[in-house]
Amino acid sequence: MKYGIAIFPTKAVQDEANSYRKRYDPHYALIPPHITLKEAFQVDDDQLEELVTELKRIANETKPFKININKVSTFAPVTNTIYLKVEPIKELIELYEKMQSGKFPKNQEYAFVPHITIAQKLSHDEYSDVFGSLQMKNIQIEDEVDRFQLMYQLDNGSWTVHDSFVFGKEPV
Amino acid sequence: MKYGIAIFPTKAVQDEANSYRKRYDPHYALIPPHITLKEAFQVDDDQLEELVTELKRIANETKPFKININKVSTFAPVTNTIYLKVEPIKELIELYEKMQSGKFPKNQEYAFVPHITIAQKLSHDEYSDVFGSLQMKNIQIEDEVDRFQLMYQLDNGSWTVHDSFVFGKEPV
Repeated sequence: MKYGIAIFPTKAVQDEANSYRKRYDPHYALIPPHITLKEAFQVDDDQLEELVTELKRIANETKPFKININKVSTFAPVTNTIYLKVEPIKELIELYEKMQSGKFPKNQEYAFVPHITIAQKLSHDEYSDVFGSLQMKNIQIEDEVDRFQLMYQLDNGSWTVHDSFVFGKEPV
Repeated sequence: MKYGIAIFPTKAVQDEANSYRKRYDPHYALIPPHITLKEAFQVDDDQLEELVTELKRIANETKPFKININKVSTFAPVTNTIYLKVEPIKELIELYEKMQSGKFPKNQEYAFVPHITIAQKLSHDEYSDVFGSLQMKNIQIEDEVDRFQLMYQLDNGSWTVHDSFVFGKEPV
């Protein structure tokens, strides 16, 4: 089955992201707004338990942290995806790296750029219009992260949660 | 915020249910196929922690169990919702009852009928056609349940997971 690991920001941030996604992101209905920690990867059912144990360990040794979003950015010219750029603090990078090593398959094609996608798969003209206007928005979001979620993908492309991993609140 | 508690059946059952929902259920994009244990209820942020603790306790004293789905049924004439009827075994009823007592708000309008909705809000003629043809299907699904999920609702009506509660595997 295909799994992925994501952080869902708080409801207010998801609602804000959805106000753009509704119009500009064909994945709007497949998954709520999220920060991808690990892109879709294949796991056999009998290996899953082992990864779940690893994820528990990782969550347990992570403390809740704050994230900041200060601008809208884009992956253009690689893809014309537009996103809320999440400041790449060390807590996020460490989570990402732990999920690319040890028992986890390495499956990251590009450098890790933490982000919340708000538009993708636009035509060239749409992209220019939308990015032009979003880029001028004054965005200042602070949010707290205290868990990540292991999701799996259904045949229709949508994602269902398998498990949540709440961070350890005490220093390990 | 508005919360709800649901069981997601395994991927194969969700894929099967989605093959109908795609055409006949306007909530298709809002949440994956599920068995509702507790309908949407309002919780203040400062009360949430207490309910999460209760849910952990409930999950911990529940052992994984099997569910069976043997027919398509309907809530007509109350509503024209069509659903996969989940046999109402005592494990499901106990979970439902625990979430209607103690610290939980009582919020169930009708008797508890465990089900997976596959069609709703159809016109009268559509309803008759769809129910007529689905009713004749030979359905025999056995599935295993080992967790439930606490979800919250976004402004667009879709649901994001807050937490998963995996059942205790040993007798308590």
